[in-house]
Amino acid sequence: MNAHDLPPRAADLLERIRSRAPRVHCLMNTVVQKFVADGLSALGARPSMTSSPEEIRSFVRKAEALTVNLGTLDAQRRVAIDLALGAAAEEGKPWALDPAHCDYSPPRAALAQELLSRGLAVLRANAAECALLAPPPEVATVRSGETDLILRAGSGFAVENGHPLTAKVTGTGCLSGALIAAFCAVEPDPLTAAASATLALGAAAEIAAEGARGPGSFEPALLDALHALTPSDLLRLARIRDA
Amino acid sequence: MNAHDLPPRAADLLERIRSRAPRVHCLMNTVVQKFVADGLSALGARPSMTSSPEEIRSFVRKAEALTVNLGTLDAQRRVAIDLALGAAAEEGKPWALDPAHCDYSPPRAALAQELLSRGLAVLRANAAECALLAPPPEVATVRSGETDLILRAGSGFAVENGHPLTAKVTGTGCLSGALIAAFCAVEPDPLTAAASATLALGAAAEIAAEGARGPGSFEPALLDALHALTPSDLLRLARIRDA
Amino acid sequence: MNAHDLPPRAADLLERIRSRAPRVHCLMNTVVQKFVADGLSALGARPSMTSSPEEIRSFVRKAEALTVNLGTLDAQRRVAIDLALGAAAEEGKPWALDPAHCDYSPPRAALAQELLSRGLAVLRANAAECALLAPPPEVATVRSGETDLILRAGSGFAVENGHPLTAKVTGTGCLSGALIAAFCAVEPDPLTAAASATLALGAAAEIAAEGARGPGSFEPALLDALHALTPSDLLRLARIRDA
Repeated sequence: MNAHDLPPRAADLLERIRSRAPRVHCLMNTVVQKFVADGLSALGARPSMTSSPEEIRSFVRKAEALTVNLGTLDAQRRVAIDLALGAAAEEGKPWALDPAHCDYSPPRAALAQELLSRGLAVLRANAAECALLAPPPEVATVRSGETDLILRAGSGFAVENGHPLTAKVTGTGCLSGALIAAFCAVEPDPLTAAASATLALGAAAEIAAEGARGPGSFEPALLDALHALTPSDLLRLARIRDA
Repeated sequence: MNAHDLPPRAADLLERIRSRAPRVHCLMNTVVQKFVADGLSALGARPSMTSSPEEIRSFVRKAEALTVNLGTLDAQRRVAIDLALGAAAEEGKPWALDPAHCDYSPPRAALAQELLSRGLAVLRANAAECALLAPPPEVATVRSGETDLILRAGSGFAVENGHPLTAKVTGTGCLSGALIAAFCAVEPDPLTAAASATLALGAAAEIAAEGARGPGSFEPALLDALHALTPSDLLRLARIRDA
Repeated sequence: MNAHDLPPRAADLLERIRSRAPRVHCLMNTVVQKFVADGLSALGARPSMTSSPEEIRSFVRKAEALTVNLGTLDAQRRVAIDLALGAAAEEGKPWALDPAHCDYSPPRAALAQELLSRGLAVLRANAAECALLAPPPEVATVRSGETDLILRAGSGFAVENGHPLTAKVTGTGCLSGALIAAFCAVEPDPLTAAASATLALGAAAEIAAEGARGPGSFEPALLDALHALTPSDLLRLARIRDA
């Protein structure tokens, strides 16, 4: 697929999410659990959030996709991640990884590298995090930045949608990882799913910024915009190049 | 009491909460702790949230009521719940249970069933969760849905207040469990307390929806509406039937 | 420094925060992690939040200041606090303490007292919490209340800025502790840093309250106001006396 064909495909996937309401289980850092859950609901997916080792397998089995975020990592979370990825592999559920701040913590970077080989569909990370990680060629990578680069095996898309206020709201990167999982639940190609999710969040951010007076009012506006986002918004706002 | 008498009673209880500012301790899932605390404060109660086993008894002793939510359940949380219910029983403090998503996790459902016999005042659950649980006859049950059913020993009220946006905001069900506990702090009859809390949240949701542009702006509007809610709003907006 | 000289100094420090974007690590109670992170970002600082014992030292080493909040204290958090303060001492990083609700829990009060002697720069507490604690004379204390008293060795400032809605939003006290740490990152005198942070938050609250319809809309408005706050706002709004 080339950049020209991505927006109509993303528009179809958005409608598919609205009609199927896929459940996305999130092993999410505790800081942003509610914001990410609200963002998934606003898009049209259904979030769940437990990280209890005794329960995680049941929740992953009921979900259509999984997202793993390494923020607020501790011993119990490590156990839960291992159990969750085991359940995802058994049932062929796609999953996305956000190695949040792994450049600040050598053990977190080591765990991230280890997880890359466990059937990962999409890695979402910033440039500093990407520099520490070597994903297998079948993994799609979203390298976030002023322009987001979505690549697999060296080629893909550059998505220029988005707004600077996004970086002032804690958890928008984590939400991106969860939305990628939601698109993976309705689209088997991880590159297409990841680029569509990136476009959807970027377009919603642009709409939200129009009425925001700062980062505080931008956050509820972003949830409103995700909820109101239409397929034609994606066609109208997309700024995507081949990369 | 019949449905006709409930709104004036709920209006009295709302004023009682504002004048007494009861402290409600919450063993709340980590996803929605702040939202539930803010909702209790907006109503006029005072929240506390610790779930540390070493501290939980001191906090329950200083509270007028307790709410226990089984989301994000783990080993430490189980210990804290047991200690909290012990302290509540010793001091005759009322408590409410929300078995959040117990239909997704057999161990969570088993724990919920076990807790029903520990002096519970009000069980708050959706239809799927209720189907798994058999509360003793003295427990009041709030079965949430498009119409909320508040029953004890087979009779009670159907409350039709509320707004669909409520379901798009993570934690509104959890907040309902906390508001029920707040009303239990000022009203000894659990059926009356539970129906009054359900009416208050439903009425606030209707007021909030008037100015909301989506689920993002609905959330702060709901807190504003709880804060501004008057006894006469309850009389004016109540849609309650005998059930 | 006397009260007359404080506002221009606070205005300089605000500009310094915007230009240096100091990283502030927060050992923050789980209830308000996102709100505090968003508040630090809105001011112009950069938050981090992990409390994992295996990672905390790396994060403190990368930060310019640290804030420790004793809400939602448990065994793991105690270990993390000890490791974090060890790293802060080794590298001479300033830190602030909020003994949140230590008047509700004897073990929490005992820990707070113990921490006062570990190189603390600023203690932030309400009157009930302050009454239980005896800080060494070199520690600056912010005693929050209708008027905030910022004292060291018996003298300092009374800051009258602020708005009553602040008390209806869970986490504004915790945010105050984090903003104090941000000012400590750019100002070596803890009394000046603490008074400047208190002025900044109080002034932002006054601006936010102008457009708020209740505590729900006050919260995003407070973040917008922190983000838009200018040095001249501090000069114009300051109500500070010697104390």
